[in-house]
Amino acid sequence: MPTTRAWHLKSRPTGLPTVDNFELKETPLPGLEEGWIRVENEWLSVDPYMRGRMNDVKSYTAPFALGEPMQGGAVGKVVESRSPDFAVGETVVHMLGWREAAAGPAQAFNKVPNLPVDDHQWLGNLGLTGATAYFGLLHVAEAKAGDIVFVSAAAGAVGSAVVQIAKAKGLTVIGSAGGAEKCAWVRELGADAAIDYKAGPVLKQLMVAAPDGIDVYFDNVGGDHLDAAFAAARLNARFPICGMIEDYNKGPSHVFRYMMRIIAARITVKGFLYFDFLARMPDFYRDMGGWIEGGQVRSRETIRDGIENMPEAFLDLFRGANIGKMLVRV
Amino acid sequence: MPTTRAWHLKSRPTGLPTVDNFELKETPLPGLEEGWIRVENEWLSVDPYMRGRMNDVKSYTAPFALGEPMQGGAVGKVVESRSPDFAVGETVVHMLGWREAAAGPAQAFNKVPNLPVDDHQWLGNLGLTGATAYFGLLHVAEAKAGDIVFVSAAAGAVGSAVVQIAKAKGLTVIGSAGGAEKCAWVRELGADAAIDYKAGPVLKQLMVAAPDGIDVYFDNVGGDHLDAAFAAARLNARFPICGMIEDYNKGPSHVFRYMMRIIAARITVKGFLYFDFLARMPDFYRDMGGWIEGGQVRSRETIRDGIENMPEAFLDLFRGANIGKMLVRV
Repeated sequence: MPTTRAWHLKSRPTGLPTVDNFELKETPLPGLEEGWIRVENEWLSVDPYMRGRMNDVKSYTAPFALGEPMQGGAVGKVVESRSPDFAVGETVVHMLGWREAAAGPAQAFNKVPNLPVDDHQWLGNLGLTGATAYFGLLHVAEAKAGDIVFVSAAAGAVGSAVVQIAKAKGLTVIGSAGGAEKCAWVRELGADAAIDYKAGPVLKQLMVAAPDGIDVYFDNVGGDHLDAAFAAARLNARFPICGMIEDYNKGPSHVFRYMMRIIAARITVKGFLYFDFLARMPDFYRDMGGWIEGGQVRSRETIRDGIENMPEAFLDLFRGANIGKMLVRV
Repeated sequence: MPTTRAWHLKSRPTGLPTVDNFELKETPLPGLEEGWIRVENEWLSVDPYMRGRMNDVKSYTAPFALGEPMQGGAVGKVVESRSPDFAVGETVVHMLGWREAAAGPAQAFNKVPNLPVDDHQWLGNLGLTGATAYFGLLHVAEAKAGDIVFVSAAAGAVGSAVVQIAKAKGLTVIGSAGGAEKCAWVRELGADAAIDYKAGPVLKQLMVAAPDGIDVYFDNVGGDHLDAAFAAARLNARFPICGMIEDYNKGPSHVFRYMMRIIAARITVKGFLYFDFLARMPDFYRDMGGWIEGGQVRSRETIRDGIENMPEAFLDLFRGANIGKMLVRV
């Protein structure tokens, strides 16, 4: 039986994972049944949410099983097909990542729409992170003309998409990021202001950047940022919440001093995941595809070469080592 | 010039107020201008939210001014009228409480609807606390058939109304309260289960009372209760938030261990105040009036006699001394 190299979860991390929690192993690649395809992966995604799947806790996705190949976003080319729906050479995006090759039933794979973009974009602005930004900002928060938007991790994959979608929609947007280089890039993307959270308290800087307060806070971080947003919220503010990276490894530790402003400012805090909006993906591809083509949404990637380096790439997400989308090129 | 006795805020409390923060003083009662009325108050309301107005912090209502008569809900009878809209002897509900008599422009007073209820109900189930329960449960949370509702401070004025409205609508409801006597009353009101938060951890008891989780958490408390609700929330749960009494005096101190479940369970947390729904008050009077008349909503009051005892009545709210609505009879 043919094999492929795949990353396995060797042990469950406590706190910040280490490379020792992962193991790259040859693993069998099943022969194709009727209706199956085989794909060689070209790009693999690492995303902060994967940390949650390393815990043995039921959440919106099942935990990674110990000793099994891990999963995650991937883009590849069909190299063998027993499905009438897929031809050899087609590009597909799917969730059998963390491995060089994948085989499975055709419905586990999605053909990419016909848009003139680099393949890795299907893991970024046209994939999970872009869709998270799009649906969170426009559907969960229902951001509209006149809104002042605050987004944390604005130099990250989701945050940088939020900044640009907000500007494409004519909104005012303030992004926060760690360090001068990231902040410069956030401004370059069109943000009206950038806050360097490493340079001083978030709330103090937010009060300067948005003296009249904010209408939307797009949360990728939790902690200090969320608390500052509570403090600065204007009447009927909306907080779409898709991640709280600050808590993923060390667990929650923040006391929200301004949480009670939920009442006075009638804040709506709402958790969401992009796959709640799968029925609207055609809207997303149309809008985001148009913005990318028109230059209103640009992407930047932090690319690591070689599947061997995938755990380090993942860990670097928590060290803030990436600007834009972190990707592994197989 | 005639005078009346009115409670004044003498000094701003730090933490839990004491009676020394308040002063009962003779204060001038202005003569009636054209369009004004004069009212003798019969019932005065004390409510936890008033604690917020004792701080010098802008919120949804202006802070109480030092040395000025305090304000709050009151029911009284018109004793003099220079307004064509009010006749002597009519019952009015208004915000010039914390005092024996009030005079002001007619638009500061509301005639009570024509319903066969005791006058003090206009401060309870037919007033601020009942309307808060009604709009929070039915409009903010949009509670619907099949929902499992969890409400904290269920023996209090708002919570006991939530329990009864939920039952009138055929929902399952779990109430939490402090101590066996309060819990017995919560069950008597129809709650499917009552949790005594003084007898053990809220989350542990909630898991027993609602093994399948909850769809709505009506928060009056914050802290442990809110965290337990995060943990127990089912998909698309809604949390209307109208108060966090736990934090009013000591400030926030809780670390929310389960807050990140906002994402997995797609929880919506929304702050509100009943006066966001003034346009729908006719619906409220119709429904709540009907439930009271039909015996589906009952009230219980903890009554203190004499305006002299008003600060103690207020402080007792934070000691959990009340069952149902706390009122002062002038």
